[in-house]
Order: sequence, then C-alpha cells, then structure tokens
Amino acid sequence: MELLKQKIIQEGIVLDGGVLKVDSFLNHQVDPELMMEIGRTFARLFRDSGVTRIMTIESSGIAPAVLTALELGVPMVFARKRKSLTLQEDLYTEKVYSFTKREESEVTVSKKFLAPAERVLIIDDFLANGEAALGMARIIRQAGAEVAGIGIVIEKSFQAGRGKLLEQGYRVESLARIASLEGGKAAFV
Amino acid sequence: MELLKQKIIQEGIVLDGGVLKVDSFLNHQVDPELMMEIGRTFARLFRDSGVTRIMTIESSGIAPAVLTALELGVPMVFARKRKSLTLQEDLYTEKVYSFTKREESEVTVSKKFLAPAERVLIIDDFLANGEAALGMARIIRQAGAEVAGIGIVIEKSFQAGRGKLLEQGYRVESLARIASLEGGKAAFV
Repeated sequence: MELLKQKIIQEGIVLDGGVLKVDSFLNHQVDPELMMEIGRTFARLFRDSGVTRIMTIESSGIAPAVLTALELGVPMVFARKRKSLTLQEDLYTEKVYSFTKREESEVTVSKKFLAPAERVLIIDDFLANGEAALGMARIIRQAGAEVAGIGIVIEKSFQAGRGKLLEQGYRVESLARIASLEGGKAAFV
Repeated sequence: MELLKQKIIQEGIVLDGGVLKVDSFLNHQVDPELMMEIGRTFARLFRDSGVTRIMTIESSGIAPAVLTALELGVPMVFARKRKSLTLQEDLYTEKVYSFTKREESEVTVSKKFLAPAERVLIIDDFLANGEAALGMARIIRQAGAEVAGIGIVIEKSFQAGRGKLLEQGYRVESLARIASLEGGKAAFV
C-alpha cells in the first residue's frame, strides 16, 4: 500500500534493536483517513474469503480492525490483554509472549463472541515474531472456528513471524513489508 | 441517539452494583455500523466547535473516537493507560482512578501530539464518576490547549461525572443517558 509506505518513510522513527516507531499515525496518534484506506484495502483482499468476523488485540489493532469490519459488514471483536487471570469458564484464553515488552500476557475472548461456524479474519498493527497472531489463531481454533486470513498493517519481514504463520497454512497479507531497518532507514521488501 | 438506546435495551446486561455490560457492541465485540453512526452524531454535534483533534483513552474509546475523527477530518490520539511509570519528559501524565477496577493508573499522551493552540474534543465510551474525562481534560490544559467539548457514548446520569464536568465549564454531549439501572433494567433520562 503506497500511501502507508510513504507515511512510514516520512514519519517512522527507527530506534535501536530493530524497533520502528509509528506513533504519529498508528500506535498513539491515529490518522483516520489512512485507517479508512487500510480498512478498504483489507476488505478488497479478503472480500472472497467468506469472512464472518474480524478479530484483533487491544489497543493498536482496534482502529484498522473496526474500519475493515465496517467495509466488510461484519462484527469485530478485540481480544483483551491481561497480565494474569483466574480461569473463567466463559472465556477463551491463550498466553502470548511479547518480545518488545519482555512479558507474557493472557489474551482473552468471550465465548459469546466466537462461534464454531465462523470464519475469522485476524487484523493486527504489527507482525514481528508472530506471537500475537498465533495466539489469536489458537483462540479461533479453540472455538472450533476457522482462520479466514491474517491482515497485517506493518510486517517486519526480517523477523520470524510471517514464516511461522505460513507454516501453519494461514494466508498472510501485509500492507507494508519491511526488509530492513539498517542505518536507521526502513527498506521495503 | 435512538439506535444506541435500542441496542442498550436489547443487548445491555445489568450487573450488581450499577454495572451495565455492553460488551456485545462497544467494549469487547464492536458493531462497526453503530460506531459509524456514533461518529456521525458526534461530528454533527461538535461541527461548529473548531475541533482540531480527538482524544480518548485506550481501549474501548478508540472505535467511536476514530470514526468521529474520520467524520470531522482531524487526527485522533489515544491516551495510554499504565499502572505506574517512571517520569518521562516527553509525556503529559495524569493519575486517573478507576472506581470499577479500584485502581489508579497513569494516563499519558506524548507531547508531540498535543499543541497549545489546539481545541480538543474528548470522546469516551462511558461517563460514570468522570475520572477518565477529567484526567484527559487536565492533560489538555497541561499542554496549554483547550477542551472543545466532551462526547460520551453512554452516561450513567445517576453518578457524579456529568455534574463535575459541567462545574468546570465543559460542554458534555452524551448519546444515551441512563437515569437508573434499578430492577435490572436501563431507564433513560
């Protein structure tokens, strides 16, 4: 997605350790026109995948996910992230490790909002090691539902996430694929 | 907003202690068409208020806030909630107490995304005791900016929040005002 790549080049800040900061349009400040364009693009890519629901994880996935849901005319559910939780029967729960924050959190979705017959499109802001997307996919399979695809706003293609998701047979569509952040500059695949 | 009231009547679940659960369309599962309608309504109400930016707090405020921002053609910023934080110079920080969770968290906004000349519309999913909205308003004043107004999806009018906000001179527009949850049923103002 050309508009997104331009935003990354113009506003993205590369920090030490392969971190790309895009808090001017995605993670903190949000550009609503860009989110609308992202929603339209995901909807076009997955229009024929029989998607019945969008799933994301709070917080930065919510804006692109709700606009994709609006375009596809399906409900969205955002998984809740919590540090630890007593087991609750009405929730699907998976542990997800964040390499950025170096902590494990529990990701939960209410059983009410995920039925066995569903085809779920996972949307997330970033794909790096794939832990968040894999956790959501496990929740979808726990429910007996199917992963219709995985839509990623920014993929760090130099990390292992994409490979892990493809290995499990999922279709992955990333709107911007970063090949490298060397020399403080984003280079695309 | 009639559509929202119907949703609350049909899908809202009243729990003990004056809690209204609306996780089927606002807090966990999100109804994108309803969010679009909410965004349009807030945009109409505040069209002439010279709004330059929308502010909300993660996570449930993000969906209505991004659609309001889309309609008004302005950027949105969502404040980050954290349990505790070492003081960082590049952030505006305010303490916000949550009566529901019985804990205090720090709410932060990057100084980059809030300038002195701005007129900021606060959007939030719920207004009860007003702590979150007051925290955001303090952050806006810290920046030397102005609160253009406060847009609330669901107001618990039997709690103190609205009064506190009006006392400080803010314009408050709530799309559904709940007078009581007695007998397990939502009654509107």
